[in-house]
Amino acid sequence: MLIVQKYGGSSLQDPGRMKQVAKRILHLHGSGHEVVVVCSAMGDTSDELIDLAGKVSSDPSAREMDMLLTSGERMSNALMAMAIHELEGAAFSLSGAQAGIFTDASHGRARIVEVVPSRVRQILDQGAIALVAGFQGVSRDTNDTTTLGRGGSDVTAVALAAALKADICEIYTDVDGVFSADPRIVGSARLLETVSYAEMLEMSATGAKVLMSRCVEYARRHDVSIRVRSSFTDHPGTLVSNSMEDVSVEASRVTGVTHTKSIAQITLEHIPAEPSVVAHIFDVLAGAAIPIDMLQNICAPLRPEFSFTVASEDGQRTCALLEEHRARIGYGPVRCDGGVGQVSLVGAGIRSEPGIVATLCRTLAGIGIEVQLISASEIRVSALCRADQLHAAVRALHRSFGLDSDVPAVVYAGTGR
Amino acid sequence: MLIVQKYGGSSLQDPGRMKQVAKRILHLHGSGHEVVVVCSAMGDTSDELIDLAGKVSSDPSAREMDMLLTSGERMSNALMAMAIHELEGAAFSLSGAQAGIFTDASHGRARIVEVVPSRVRQILDQGAIALVAGFQGVSRDTNDTTTLGRGGSDVTAVALAAALKADICEIYTDVDGVFSADPRIVGSARLLETVSYAEMLEMSATGAKVLMSRCVEYARRHDVSIRVRSSFTDHPGTLVSNSMEDVSVEASRVTGVTHTKSIAQITLEHIPAEPSVVAHIFDVLAGAAIPIDMLQNICAPLRPEFSFTVASEDGQRTCALLEEHRARIGYGPVRCDGGVGQVSLVGAGIRSEPGIVATLCRTLAGIGIEVQLISASEIRVSALCRADQLHAAVRALHRSFGLDSDVPAVVYAGTGR
Repeated sequence: MLIVQKYGGSSLQDPGRMKQVAKRILHLHGSGHEVVVVCSAMGDTSDELIDLAGKVSSDPSAREMDMLLTSGERMSNALMAMAIHELEGAAFSLSGAQAGIFTDASHGRARIVEVVPSRVRQILDQGAIALVAGFQGVSRDTNDTTTLGRGGSDVTAVALAAALKADICEIYTDVDGVFSADPRIVGSARLLETVSYAEMLEMSATGAKVLMSRCVEYARRHDVSIRVRSSFTDHPGTLVSNSMEDVSVEASRVTGVTHTKSIAQITLEHIPAEPSVVAHIFDVLAGAAIPIDMLQNICAPLRPEFSFTVASEDGQRTCALLEEHRARIGYGPVRCDGGVGQVSLVGAGIRSEPGIVATLCRTLAGIGIEVQLISASEIRVSALCRADQLHAAVRALHRSFGLDSDVPAVVYAGTGR
Repeated sequence: MLIVQKYGGSSLQDPGRMKQVAKRILHLHGSGHEVVVVCSAMGDTSDELIDLAGKVSSDPSAREMDMLLTSGERMSNALMAMAIHELEGAAFSLSGAQAGIFTDASHGRARIVEVVPSRVRQILDQGAIALVAGFQGVSRDTNDTTTLGRGGSDVTAVALAAALKADICEIYTDVDGVFSADPRIVGSARLLETVSYAEMLEMSATGAKVLMSRCVEYARRHDVSIRVRSSFTDHPGTLVSNSMEDVSVEASRVTGVTHTKSIAQITLEHIPAEPSVVAHIFDVLAGAAIPIDMLQNICAPLRPEFSFTVASEDGQRTCALLEEHRARIGYGPVRCDGGVGQVSLVGAGIRSEPGIVATLCRTLAGIGIEVQLISASEIRVSALCRADQLHAAVRALHRSFGLDSDVPAVVYAGTGR
């Protein structure tokens, strides 16, 4: 088999952990597999570099920031190669450019345009382990070093797996896999054995932090199976693949409960009773490239309000923008509420099962939580509540949809945290 | 003018010093010059990385060590670009590969085989400052990142100056320039305004640490004028160029007194009185690529000894090697003495002035220092003495050759050290 493995910063925090990971890599390689490894920067390296940049510049250029930050992954991959050599293994570390990760020239958030892994292939052909610096590439137009943005190392791993036609892409992290809810909040959360791409996408979009949507999208598009697992245990983790896509429509079920507080609720009062008004509002937001999420038009005669949510970081900007256009479009005061949270149920075929929304509403009402907005897609239902009620909502829904496990979830297995 | 500047690690120790250097660079650029800057890694970065490598590997591979260490210069140059941007200057940082520094594939001590500075030229043509990561290049054969070995950033600067036909290559350090002796030992050492390549080569080879021989050799071969100066003061420093080469033969003089303790004296006892024996000994050393320095055959009838010096790090190896061949070649016990020091007088036409050796011997004898070996080249005379007498020897010779200055030498001007 050809296996691509990606190790995150917490798995590489210090020389001791690096040596453990080196052992794991060699063990796999020794079983006769071809192994490609993508290492993130060690522990807090990236934060330290960002800090240094802040000390010489109030607004560091994106190009130079990329040159600076990519050093972190070059270092960790070179160190990993040394740790593997120390155990008598053969390994070579490559920069993103050497591994053939070609991107556009958007520094800080570059998109991969092509992967030409000929040097990686060459290293595998000589029986050695190929180590590739994650998070980075080289701009095809400018020959400058670029970074792929948040979660970039996962994207590197999936992109290499796709280009090399790997059998599996293993994403190593500090938790055992994808859980039915955040195990720090729901003690009885269960580890999911398999999740479909579509479910994982919705879970990532609604608060599951273990994988970024972008990496899952890339995997889905190129049909790369991902296994999310812990670098501290031998648990097989969670398989994210298309294996569930076919059965999903028939077997309606809730797979997991996710939540996020990184959301702001925007409310416009005194909306005029004209159909064109909402279109005008959307035009303003589209012009500023602000994506909106849940929305609901509560048009009770006495309180004609219009409400929707945006990502927290867009909250203030959205408010300011709508205030600016208020007189022209003709609505009342604009409110931005950052004290809200969103709980979501994700699972194949949720929408075709009307009982699910009913159970959600009944469960939350039962513990005195008022739902302020609700929205549903094919495989997800989300509800907006007060932020301080969010954890209670997650726990109650996890229980009422029968997801509680008998075995307590082990959080950060092996690290003692 | 086109000016290449190189800043060492101590000039870039922290964000505060980086900002000072950024100001200096911009000031020069603002006076209408084209400026190329080569930054070393910040302060102790390289030592910290070497330390990390030692924690994951007992014998790190040279290839991975190069990948690891070169990150230091990428970081410092990116940070310098940001510091220049902060002062409204235009600058772009380049890796060694981007700057067209092509080398052979000898990791850890690569030789530059070609410099193709087309991107540097392009940056200068658009009126910006080009920053180049020192110490590193890319192997033409393997496309791997290489390092140039000790003093490599100076070589990068001189090589770029040669390829760009720069008017001057400024090497910034934490002392004011090249002194007539180490000012930490000789308080009355004088700063030299000009030094020829040949003199600088001899001074570097015999203990002056301010420039490595290799960088001076490169400069001489490509006729690049070097100015050694402090990044903490405005002193013009020392010009190293061919300007003195012509007058040198006529005006015999001593330019400076250098010294080193990084030397070991090897002595072979009971040398047989056959001419072929010494040739056999040299064959053994040549076979192990051990360069020898001073040598003298003290063939007193009662004490037929043969003695020479090697670099400290080769001492034990030389001894072991000669013990191995002892029975075959037929000499007596081998001694290695690490407690010696070498003091040297460097200056144009020294050899053609026999009085210089006489003055040297008289001066040292006058303060009770026994000279164990002596050797002379065209522009240098070196004497071997006990290590604990070395500083006294340096001071006495500096005085007797009329080098003492009325103005005390300022050591580490501006840094308070």
